[in-house]
Amino acid sequence: MREYATNLTLLTDFYELTMMNGYIESGMDQQIGYFDYFFRKLPDKSGFAISCGLASLVDYIENLKFSDDDIAFLRGKGIFGEKFLSALKQFRFSGDIWAMPEGTPVFPNEPIVIVRGTMFEAQLIETALLLLLNHQSLICSKANRIVRSADGRAVLEFGARRAQGVDAAVLGARAAYIAGCAGSSNTVCDKYFGVPASGTMAHSWIQLFDSEYEAFKAYTTTYPDSTVLLVDTYNVLKSGVPNAIKVFDEVLKPLGKRPVGIRLDSGDIAYLSKKCRVMLDDAGYSDCKIFASNSLDETIIRDLLYQGAKIDAFGVGERLITSKSWPVFGGVYKLAAVEVDGVLTPKIKLSENVEKITVPGFKQVWRLFNKDTNSPIADVITAHDETIDTTKPYELFHPDYTWKRKRIDNYYCRPMLVQIYRQGECVYQLPSLQEVRAYCQKCVAELWEEVSRFENPHRYYVDLSYDMWQLKRQLIERYDDEQ
Amino acid sequence: MREYATNLTLLTDFYELTMMNGYIESGMDQQIGYFDYFFRKLPDKSGFAISCGLASLVDYIENLKFSDDDIAFLRGKGIFGEKFLSALKQFRFSGDIWAMPEGTPVFPNEPIVIVRGTMFEAQLIETALLLLLNHQSLICSKANRIVRSADGRAVLEFGARRAQGVDAAVLGARAAYIAGCAGSSNTVCDKYFGVPASGTMAHSWIQLFDSEYEAFKAYTTTYPDSTVLLVDTYNVLKSGVPNAIKVFDEVLKPLGKRPVGIRLDSGDIAYLSKKCRVMLDDAGYSDCKIFASNSLDETIIRDLLYQGAKIDAFGVGERLITSKSWPVFGGVYKLAAVEVDGVLTPKIKLSENVEKITVPGFKQVWRLFNKDTNSPIADVITAHDETIDTTKPYELFHPDYTWKRKRIDNYYCRPMLVQIYRQGECVYQLPSLQEVRAYCQKCVAELWEEVSRFENPHRYYVDLSYDMWQLKRQLIERYDDEQ
Repeated sequence: MREYATNLTLLTDFYELTMMNGYIESGMDQQIGYFDYFFRKLPDKSGFAISCGLASLVDYIENLKFSDDDIAFLRGKGIFGEKFLSALKQFRFSGDIWAMPEGTPVFPNEPIVIVRGTMFEAQLIETALLLLLNHQSLICSKANRIVRSADGRAVLEFGARRAQGVDAAVLGARAAYIAGCAGSSNTVCDKYFGVPASGTMAHSWIQLFDSEYEAFKAYTTTYPDSTVLLVDTYNVLKSGVPNAIKVFDEVLKPLGKRPVGIRLDSGDIAYLSKKCRVMLDDAGYSDCKIFASNSLDETIIRDLLYQGAKIDAFGVGERLITSKSWPVFGGVYKLAAVEVDGVLTPKIKLSENVEKITVPGFKQVWRLFNKDTNSPIADVITAHDETIDTTKPYELFHPDYTWKRKRIDNYYCRPMLVQIYRQGECVYQLPSLQEVRAYCQKCVAELWEEVSRFENPHRYYVDLSYDMWQLKRQLIERYDDEQ
Repeated sequence: MREYATNLTLLTDFYELTMMNGYIESGMDQQIGYFDYFFRKLPDKSGFAISCGLASLVDYIENLKFSDDDIAFLRGKGIFGEKFLSALKQFRFSGDIWAMPEGTPVFPNEPIVIVRGTMFEAQLIETALLLLLNHQSLICSKANRIVRSADGRAVLEFGARRAQGVDAAVLGARAAYIAGCAGSSNTVCDKYFGVPASGTMAHSWIQLFDSEYEAFKAYTTTYPDSTVLLVDTYNVLKSGVPNAIKVFDEVLKPLGKRPVGIRLDSGDIAYLSKKCRVMLDDAGYSDCKIFASNSLDETIIRDLLYQGAKIDAFGVGERLITSKSWPVFGGVYKLAAVEVDGVLTPKIKLSENVEKITVPGFKQVWRLFNKDTNSPIADVITAHDETIDTTKPYELFHPDYTWKRKRIDNYYCRPMLVQIYRQGECVYQLPSLQEVRAYCQKCVAELWEEVSRFENPHRYYVDLSYDMWQLKRQLIERYDDEQ
């Protein structure tokens, strides 16, 4: 029943298909559209999010193909024309895509991906593009919060059993690794993506043996080089830790080996970890680490560390893999321009809610960095071919309250949207997962503390260039005139 | 990069594998274990949840197989013995599984699935079993709340673009359909599962044409038998509905056809729907339906209906497909018994938290129904071979406060756990999706209103038989003695 998982071509909202057929019927299918992928609200009230899912998007585009089966299925719906159905038979993506690389810190209302293609193809890919980027950006952003909360301690992703399906488990673990997690419990992510998988024992292991001591002894005998014992099945302080120490002494000491750690999975982790630390230290195992798991997230981890909990590594499950506190990344895909006979016409979507008015036109995003610290200062949305003259100071201004201005000196800038597809061909060399992870870590480290802090972060500037601001104003005014 | 999606055998927590290897090293891999899948807390403070995911579980078990590749990958980890690796080569599931059918209303602390198998195989399947059942039960339970809130009006699942990955979108739509949704926007679910897919147009369709009127006209001309027009791109009351009526008059009337509906996707839906209703009625289109979408869930739908909103069908997106208000179904998989040489030894997992103490032994769940109304009265957990003599009244009692008793007359009862696998062979005929859906609807309709209501539902009785209660008490006492 998993045939759907291999060919994602029909993983598209039915209205994309009715529109595609309608464009053909109306002779508009070859008209070129520009669509922006962007989001409006930061998950968890963070100061930034992290874009993730580009590798999946490329894989999706590369494999887009309507099988005979797919076409027969659509014909059976009885509403599609034969012209449309035969266009599907020939279909391959022939458009252009620009995107911010995976692992980039991103901000509201700036295009993270731009698709330029025929309305036919640009509409087809909307659903899957949104699904892949929304999901993976959500988990990457959440996992990065959790990693940062652990303040240098390792965070392991443990959530497969509570994930919202197979992809959520697997691509979620990949996103978490990019975000800085040290690894995952999910074996398949190690095989296919190189996310280091690890794990030791469940309570069932302990229960199966006649005693906790015997269970520990059997495990340690099998894994003398990677002994981590789960000490909370019966009583952590009266039984778990004493039995663990006994087994370390009896099994590892004669071999000249050291234990890796113990794991706490229930109870008062702050209290227990401090007690365990003392017991282990007193027994000569001050190098034995304490792992903690059980309904953790960034709030609880920060609170544990604030209490002085003696924890060396965290296993984080459902609250990471589902982004439980904020389980939706609200990215949207909006028409920004159309091109007829090579002439670009910017499009705007108005709304009663001023914040929902889109930025029209074919755009680029420039990130301005401080020359001394490499910290990003602001993002500026420009026309795609606009440049910024960094030999001069740059004046930022608020697009609504234009008297709010800020002059930037001592900066350099970079275009953030990189070309991924040119006329249907992938022209981007996807970096390795390790490279994406390192890039993400570097970018996050360079953010101002005021942007990356957990509570009430500074709102990072995302402004329009003067030309872009004028274009937007003109379109709004033109629309007003027509009313 | 989607190879992982076809063979789920390595979609298992790494600790399952370290334990499996450890069982072999300790000579315990052929010991038989009984594991219960159950949950403790109802999502959204509902009175019940709905079990879903059994078809996926069967599909998973049927395809369990370690490829040479998988084994080579595991060998490369450098911690597994050759005995284990060659056991994987031969591996096929040889155990027994009992489960409540998909679509069954289920309650906390009762086994929904029981796995009997060697510790080797029962441990292997833990992660995927939890993932598949937790996810699909979560979405089915949530979707059913939303369907019930709509009070007979159609609910369409629209969430693919915000789902947590491909499986979440596809199997979520399937779960939503079982729960009573009328269909999904996701085309692939129609092709593979027969979930009716539907959809009409996005705002981009309207924006592409020179005017809203032309956009409506083109659409209606292409789809005169299924015309649903999105009326909120510019101004619903001043432009959207008047243009829609004009097009209905100009295009459909001459053909003798009727419009299907209009769709509202923003703004004050309660207010707008009432105004739209009057405008459509006045124009002679009282049969034209009003569809609403935009961040809906059961709370908002109930509030819209309370306000007298004139909506005929709801499209529900992210809040259904991610179960946004409660995105985790906390099902667990716990060892309940072991069997050595045919002798069963019940196992209990104690906890400081009394509610977390497991029910030991190999069990069955009996549901008692009122003979007149067919409403379920209570579930009773018994030993697997215990029966209930329905010729006599049945006395329920609270397992902790045993003086709380209730005598049941005029009832019949059914064993809820059905055998799915016998010695590795699937002995269960999976019902069709339509059958599962009909069964689910029937079961939910039979629930007492006090159990199915949204706020402060009655806590449905899940009690132990006297024998089961005694077994549990004995094991707790025995454990106490050992301290």
